[in-house]
Amino acid sequence: MPTNRQILLDNRPQGEATTANFKLVSVDTPALQPQEVLVRHHYLSLDPYMRGRMNDSKSYAASQPLGEVMIGGTVGEVVESQHPRYQPGDKVVGMGGWQEYSVVDASQPGALRKVDTAQVPLSYYLGAVGMPGVTAWYGLVKIIAPKAGDTVVVSAATGAVGSAFGALAKARGCHVVGIAGGAEKCQYAVQELGFDACVDYRPHKDMYSLAKALKEVAPKGIDGYFENVGGMVMDAVMLRMNAFGRIALCGMIAGYDGQPLPMANPALMLINRLKVEGFIVSEHMEVWPEALAELAGLVAQGKLRPRETISQGIESAPEAFLGLLKGKNFGKQLVKLV
Amino acid sequence: MPTNRQILLDNRPQGEATTANFKLVSVDTPALQPQEVLVRHHYLSLDPYMRGRMNDSKSYAASQPLGEVMIGGTVGEVVESQHPRYQPGDKVVGMGGWQEYSVVDASQPGALRKVDTAQVPLSYYLGAVGMPGVTAWYGLVKIIAPKAGDTVVVSAATGAVGSAFGALAKARGCHVVGIAGGAEKCQYAVQELGFDACVDYRPHKDMYSLAKALKEVAPKGIDGYFENVGGMVMDAVMLRMNAFGRIALCGMIAGYDGQPLPMANPALMLINRLKVEGFIVSEHMEVWPEALAELAGLVAQGKLRPRETISQGIESAPEAFLGLLKGKNFGKQLVKLV
Repeated sequence: MPTNRQILLDNRPQGEATTANFKLVSVDTPALQPQEVLVRHHYLSLDPYMRGRMNDSKSYAASQPLGEVMIGGTVGEVVESQHPRYQPGDKVVGMGGWQEYSVVDASQPGALRKVDTAQVPLSYYLGAVGMPGVTAWYGLVKIIAPKAGDTVVVSAATGAVGSAFGALAKARGCHVVGIAGGAEKCQYAVQELGFDACVDYRPHKDMYSLAKALKEVAPKGIDGYFENVGGMVMDAVMLRMNAFGRIALCGMIAGYDGQPLPMANPALMLINRLKVEGFIVSEHMEVWPEALAELAGLVAQGKLRPRETISQGIESAPEAFLGLLKGKNFGKQLVKLV
Repeated sequence: MPTNRQILLDNRPQGEATTANFKLVSVDTPALQPQEVLVRHHYLSLDPYMRGRMNDSKSYAASQPLGEVMIGGTVGEVVESQHPRYQPGDKVVGMGGWQEYSVVDASQPGALRKVDTAQVPLSYYLGAVGMPGVTAWYGLVKIIAPKAGDTVVVSAATGAVGSAFGALAKARGCHVVGIAGGAEKCQYAVQELGFDACVDYRPHKDMYSLAKALKEVAPKGIDGYFENVGGMVMDAVMLRMNAFGRIALCGMIAGYDGQPLPMANPALMLINRLKVEGFIVSEHMEVWPEALAELAGLVAQGKLRPRETISQGIESAPEAFLGLLKGKNFGKQLVKLV
């Protein structure tokens, strides 16, 4: 059996996460039991939610146990199978974790999903046509529920979720504004991702300055906001929300290290009669087929061209993950494992 | 024609509101035009929303113009009528403002509403069977939408909205917890208003202490919260919200004087997948008939016995209003004008 290199969570972060929280180990892959499949991972997905799992405290979901392989989405190829539905060579998506191989009980519903790479590159199933894409779809369609002509805004606009949000919102006739860190990302959002405008938050020292910049590109106010970030960016957007606006709350990356991250003026939720709703896409599996079909269609039509940042080798995962938390990636952050 | 004493907004508050912001004047009531009705007010309602209207800035609704009679709900008796549907002696509810008489164009839809005082005392139409009661109904029924057995919490529990909320929630089989300022109010909430428990927030120095007290009386966590207050009380409740909890945002009285009033940990909205929704009951007129019918029924059955704090004479209105903002009232704050 092949040797499998894995990244374990070795200890929990005290404040900011560091590479010392992780540990690289090598193990042999075990012999397969009936119904099991051995998958060789081609790509590992790195996502902000993983930071929450590293804490012991209550977060999105169960805490990641110490000494176990870090959780994570993977795409790969079946190399050996004891399950009749899977053959060597099949391309599959699963939650293989931060390792080069995984052994999966394929009889568990949802554990593996075969994917078609004729029109959609394999890695996209971890981004635009995967969990991040469905996340954008749920927040836009089920929470923001925009009408054509509505102004919608997304933070972390060039990320995996933001890119998909932009394409989905344009397809619904919205005026779509992104917020991103840096002129290069903003230029990319407009020129490649089809955003109507994008605001670089970095030059803005406070929420009033950023709100003023948003006013210039969203002169009719903001009807829907998809929140990937929290903090000052959210405070600024709230200053520009229209009455009866909707905010889909998906990520608050700036608060994961445990600093208090207050909302400056929650009374705006009352004054403008906003609806603010937090969600986790894995609790809404019923929308996945519809969402994935639309996302795959947008990719096939060239209307969703997500960017990827790819680091090489499982040993690069911790560094790449810490960079993601600081916004160093550009588009979907992946680790290539083959 | 009788002389009419009025309270005008003379100037806007700089920070905290004071009696110097108001001005008492006397004018003659004008002769009636066709369709007009002269109403002698028996009671004026004082409500927290009025503080927002005193500011120039964007708030709930249009700012109260300077030099004009303060806005406010009134109940009274028709003393003269040029409209065929109204006769002297009719009891009516309207938005007569801070004055002893009002002249109303009764042909305007919704300007006046005749009420029946056989089973419901006239003053209740400003409280439990009026705008505050419907406010409680909307937040509970349309936003919180509880199931029997859910734990629901309301702040300012002995106020006009809180009292009605308690009765409406008990009628739906909820475990109902109030939050109020002082042992006397809490005792009243449990003994007279039918709350299952009530927490006095005053001894608690921070949100963690108050959250611990809430845990004792709401051991299964909180499914729905009706927010009349904001600030530390809301922060504490958020620490105890269950997954998929709903928060109806109705008032943030502590922030009206312009101090920043941040929310300590907005990430809890994401972590617990909360839905937070601000609303103004006057934008949901479609629910009023159903809500008023239920509220009048609860009063008639003795299941809703709201308390009132009544000051005497129009000249007492500013002082009584400032007391309301500080929580000095006990139950619905009214001004008796006859």
